[in-house]
Amino acid sequence: MSELLKLITPKDATDLILNSITEIKVGTEKVKTPESLGRVVRKSYRSESILPSFDKSSVDGFSVRAQDTFGASDSLPQYLKVVGEVPMGQETELIISEGQAATTYTGGMLAGDADSVVMIEYTNRIDANTIEVTKPVAKGENVVFAGEDVKPLDEILSSGHTIRPQDIGALSALGINELDVSQKPKVAIISTGDELVSAESDPKLGQIRDLNTHTISALVAQAGGIPCPIGIFKDEYELQLSAATNAMQDCDIIVFSAGSSVSNRDLTIKVFKALGKPGILAHGIAIKPGKPTILGLAQNKPLIGLPGNPVSALVVADLLLKPVIRALMDDINPLFRNQVSAFLTADIPSRSGREDYVPVKLEDTAGVLDATPVFGKSNLIFTLVKSDGIIRVPADSAGLYKGQTVTVRMY
Amino acid sequence: MSELLKLITPKDATDLILNSITEIKVGTEKVKTPESLGRVVRKSYRSESILPSFDKSSVDGFSVRAQDTFGASDSLPQYLKVVGEVPMGQETELIISEGQAATTYTGGMLAGDADSVVMIEYTNRIDANTIEVTKPVAKGENVVFAGEDVKPLDEILSSGHTIRPQDIGALSALGINELDVSQKPKVAIISTGDELVSAESDPKLGQIRDLNTHTISALVAQAGGIPCPIGIFKDEYELQLSAATNAMQDCDIIVFSAGSSVSNRDLTIKVFKALGKPGILAHGIAIKPGKPTILGLAQNKPLIGLPGNPVSALVVADLLLKPVIRALMDDINPLFRNQVSAFLTADIPSRSGREDYVPVKLEDTAGVLDATPVFGKSNLIFTLVKSDGIIRVPADSAGLYKGQTVTVRMY
Repeated sequence: MSELLKLITPKDATDLILNSITEIKVGTEKVKTPESLGRVVRKSYRSESILPSFDKSSVDGFSVRAQDTFGASDSLPQYLKVVGEVPMGQETELIISEGQAATTYTGGMLAGDADSVVMIEYTNRIDANTIEVTKPVAKGENVVFAGEDVKPLDEILSSGHTIRPQDIGALSALGINELDVSQKPKVAIISTGDELVSAESDPKLGQIRDLNTHTISALVAQAGGIPCPIGIFKDEYELQLSAATNAMQDCDIIVFSAGSSVSNRDLTIKVFKALGKPGILAHGIAIKPGKPTILGLAQNKPLIGLPGNPVSALVVADLLLKPVIRALMDDINPLFRNQVSAFLTADIPSRSGREDYVPVKLEDTAGVLDATPVFGKSNLIFTLVKSDGIIRVPADSAGLYKGQTVTVRMY
Repeated sequence: MSELLKLITPKDATDLILNSITEIKVGTEKVKTPESLGRVVRKSYRSESILPSFDKSSVDGFSVRAQDTFGASDSLPQYLKVVGEVPMGQETELIISEGQAATTYTGGMLAGDADSVVMIEYTNRIDANTIEVTKPVAKGENVVFAGEDVKPLDEILSSGHTIRPQDIGALSALGINELDVSQKPKVAIISTGDELVSAESDPKLGQIRDLNTHTISALVAQAGGIPCPIGIFKDEYELQLSAATNAMQDCDIIVFSAGSSVSNRDLTIKVFKALGKPGILAHGIAIKPGKPTILGLAQNKPLIGLPGNPVSALVVADLLLKPVIRALMDDINPLFRNQVSAFLTADIPSRSGREDYVPVKLEDTAGVLDATPVFGKSNLIFTLVKSDGIIRVPADSAGLYKGQTVTVRMY
């Protein structure tokens, strides 16, 4: 227990690394609006025009003056003279006066001097030039007025917003065809350990395949960064320092995936210290899996030392690396995406003083989600493969109980 | 009200289109495992090897025979002779016998004939060759046994599973470096309407920019498909039929984005019918926004006629097009991704007999999510831009109430 007290909490670890980079951002680049999905805009966009640009019907029917439909009913309809049709996609010179109407389509302009549109469903054609209206309309009914969607100078998107399909639509509607967005942060992934061989080779007895290069690369891509896998390096200081120093030239974040043994960690710490000031920010987090995590900063670049175990590495990368990638892009969106509420189907015992992350399998039973813990040693990657998401057992709790509502963070 | 009764429910519409394509899938292709993130595997993968491939220590310490530590305590430690070190990444010939121990690292092999590992924290070094053990270990303690993660023939991934970072790790761990995955479905997007001009041009009065080509393209990409924007076509039967016929050669799904007026819809229906049997599956859905939706099937390819209004088009595409794209890839994952529970901050009145989709803005207040409806005419795209997700008001309800828990489907 005593060792846990020396460790920093996951919340403090996140705050520490994020606070150390509040002033550090990646550069910007221009992209065409239709190609901006998922990118983070780096300036505020305001409308320079008006949307819609003309009074527009939202139904098929007839442009009318509302007062001419007053009191209309099935038994006592109002008769109007149809003086023409407003064609789609063209400016119209058609103007209606008292007692007149003009055929009008959804999305089309209103006839001049009309103030509302009667739906075709509430009209009957009497002859080529006459309709009867069986229901009154109010002024403005079935009309989207010019400027009702956006007015000039309305803020459309704040700086730091991540682009979704509708944002592409809104920007396109206003003729904003190019955007300033954050470059994708480049994340160097350096795998270290005498026992590692590449995932594509055949390990001899005692060797293991390096998984973290691939898993962390995938997670970086998922978070919107560019993974830069540097390679596997033996546990030799000079080799690792030179790999890290080179990576610092090109990349925005340096990730070490090191063994979890004390000597591996000491080596990572030595390399991080040699990269520049302030060097080490934190060493060890009160979390399971993921305790032997190292956080640092050098030359204004965040350094993250992940545990070598693939499960711990993924849990910590999700918790710390993803927010760092988003922060460097200046993403202002809160991270409540990808989480669902579910009922726990079994007790989860936990040791207090440490946050536990437990993988769960989700099942939809009649519209209600059940979360079943996937137990197993925390270093078995198949506990993650067999699960749909992960839940957090807070440090101040002795566990979670069957039937409790939990928040599941989806992978 | 009477018209609503003729419309199909959103659930029935989804079932109808999905049931019509249960036998239709896109082809497969091979990708390298590290590049398979987000792809859907098209066969089941079973392990051909064992993981870990050797008994592995999960801590730093000493390989021992558990019986030699029996009864050990701070006041009455057991003394063991250290006969060597098991190096990382190498097969060891070191064997321990009664009363002996061998230095062992996290992730490394155990010494021969050892059955457990004592953590370094529970030992003290007495001299160069002797340690004292202050806590007993049980047989198997701090060891991950060969095969404990995966055994030969264990199913790793089912056919239809979507690849996540941990899956890439697990497959790599087993030496599976290439996967059979579904090709990405190609989705033709055909925009129609006399009033439309391209999003990049300047509309004259009465014209509007075509947003749906861009927004639906983005949504298709998000869903894992390949958008194929075909262009904007005037409301002329021959033009539209020829565009659709050409698109059928290359694409797996044909999407029409047509105006919402009756004549537009009639034209889409005529084109869909001309493409082949069975032609039209449904016409009109009891949903707001999105009522004038058309569903069809021709030459084994799904046809979706989206409303021309950008908001309706996005809501319907999310509801119907996304599942169709996933189904063609044979994705078996249930769709409980990207939804959160939140408390509604205001009443939402609704008309019964029709499902309403209402955009909401989310706010995290002390760990609890509040969902505030973004009201506005359902054809204003800025209601989607200003919101974080959408909630469904069921057809059999007269609305939702302030304080109620709702499920928010995130964009």
